[in-house]
Order: sequence, then structure tokens, then C-alpha cells
Amino acid sequence: MTSMSVISEVSTQEWGVWRAFHMMRRQLDRALETQLQRDAGISAPDYEVLLALFEADDNQLRSRQLGELIGWEKSRISHQVSRMESRGLVERRECSDDLRGVWVGLTTDGRRAVLGAMRKHAAKIRQLFLDVLTEEEKKVLLSASERVLDAIGAPVCDDVSRRAS
Amino acid sequence: MTSMSVISEVSTQEWGVWRAFHMMRRQLDRALETQLQRDAGISAPDYEVLLALFEADDNQLRSRQLGELIGWEKSRISHQVSRMESRGLVERRECSDDLRGVWVGLTTDGRRAVLGAMRKHAAKIRQLFLDVLTEEEKKVLLSASERVLDAIGAPVCDDVSRRAS
Repeated sequence: MTSMSVISEVSTQEWGVWRAFHMMRRQLDRALETQLQRDAGISAPDYEVLLALFEADDNQLRSRQLGELIGWEKSRISHQVSRMESRGLVERRECSDDLRGVWVGLTTDGRRAVLGAMRKHAAKIRQLFLDVLTEEEKKVLLSASERVLDAIGAPVCDDVSRRAS
Repeated sequence: MTSMSVISEVSTQEWGVWRAFHMMRRQLDRALETQLQRDAGISAPDYEVLLALFEADDNQLRSRQLGELIGWEKSRISHQVSRMESRGLVERRECSDDLRGVWVGLTTDGRRAVLGAMRKHAAKIRQLFLDVLTEEEKKVLLSASERVLDAIGAPVCDDVSRRAS
């Protein structure tokens, strides 16, 4: 019996589910991060930002929209965008007649980076995740994920449903 | 249809599963991180290290064991331990007659921090995850997680099974 189970009065079996899930997320993140660094020389956070911009209208988003979409705090987005801007992957765009915040846009290099990473990243996700799961498991995982998102009250649930539809 | 789906020739439906799962992980991490910061003033990485040491024999682990258990690279463990050591949460312990690497041990403050965080952290995991899922979903999630870990070939699969048993 684990200490978490003792302290939290959650059954050891339930902690087994959480631990397996938690370990799986962690190792999956690690494997995908390694692939991105090796194949495209970018980090997982870089990829998150690049993909969000790549899929946005005109390849640009307001800083706040970007944060909501990726699920990061304002300060984290700001630091990440600054680092990526210094590497020429994204650029901040001001609109003099628009006071609703700065736009973050994809540069040509950023576009090249995300396109270079995408196919191999997708192949790795297929190899380690999608191809490993049965159709039934994918169905359950989708509904379970959406219900956990509802429980969290995440603002991006709609976005997930839209993209999943 | 998403760009990932176009580029990777994976069905939009399958990307929907990945995106929902990915978004859920991200929002769940964010919610748990917020809880840890608010209730215990520690980060999620701090908690990972503290919990691993709390559950280890004599509340200590070799740096390498700690890395394997949490699934981090050597350099990340080293930086994290240094930061936590400077805050008095952990301490490095040398053994003159033992050349197999430095031990990392839990301090009294570290023990207090993890005990202070555990109960509310566990309650949050129950509220947002365990209580949201049906028994059937938990069964599927456990087996799916273990199979993905097998596909990754993660060295900690045995550890997961052991803890889950």
C-alpha cells in the first residue's frame, strides 16, 4: 500500500490507476520531447505554440487566446514567446488601432520548423499511443478525457470538442 | 479536419482522441500545480521529488534511481535537487566508502512539506480524476496506460505494476 493511499484513504487499486496514468503521461511526454528535439531541434513547449499558430487564421493569435488555447498562465506564454521570438520562430505584432492586446504570429522559419516536426511527431504519437490502443479504449479515453475536462471546468473544452468533431 | 490530420494521414477522429487526451493532461497538470502552489507552496516537480523520497527506504534515493523513478534526465534531476537543496527541502549525502553516486535525502522540512501537500493533493486528484471516472473507465485506463508504457519501453513499468498491485 502506498503512502498516498494511506494518507488519502483512497484504495490502493485506485492509486494504481492514477500512478499508471501519471507514469504513462510522463514517459509519453519524455518520448515525444526527445523526438521533437532530435528531429526538429525544438522543445515540446515550442511545438505547442508553433502548432497553435499554424492552425490559427492568418497564422496568428492574440497572446491571451494563445494562453487559453495551450492552457498556460500569461507570464509563461510571455516568456515562451520572448524566447521563440529571439530565435526567429514567432513575432509579436502590434496594431495601432487595436488595443485588445498584442498578436503573436508565425514567421517563415517558425512555419518551416513546425512543418518539419509535424510528420515525425505524428508518427511517434501513432506508434506509442494511437496504434497501441484498441478502438474501444480510444472511445473510453475520449469520453473520460472530456468528462475530466468538464470537471476541471477548462475553458478549452469547446475547442477540444470542435477539433475532435 | 486539423492540419495534423492532413499532414500525418491520421483520421480526424483519432486526432480527436489524442487532442482530448492531450488537453485533459495539460489542464489536469495545471489544476494540480495550482493546488500544490496554493496549499503547500511547492511546484509539481518539487512534489514529484519529495514524494519519491518520502516513499523510499530511509527517505533517500541515489540521484540516478530518483531520475529513473520520476523519468527525468540526469541534468534535470541535478538542477531540481540543487534548487530544492537551497530551500532546505532535500540534502545530498556522500558516502566515502560508496562510489556508486550521491544519495539524495529528504530533510525534516521536506518531510513536512510533502505531508502538508499530500492530503489536499490527493483530494484534488480524487475530485478531478478518480471520482469523475467510472469503474469501467478506470479499468480501461489502467490497461491502456500499461500498454502505452510497454510500447515506450519505459524502465519504470515494473515500478508502476509494483505500486499498483
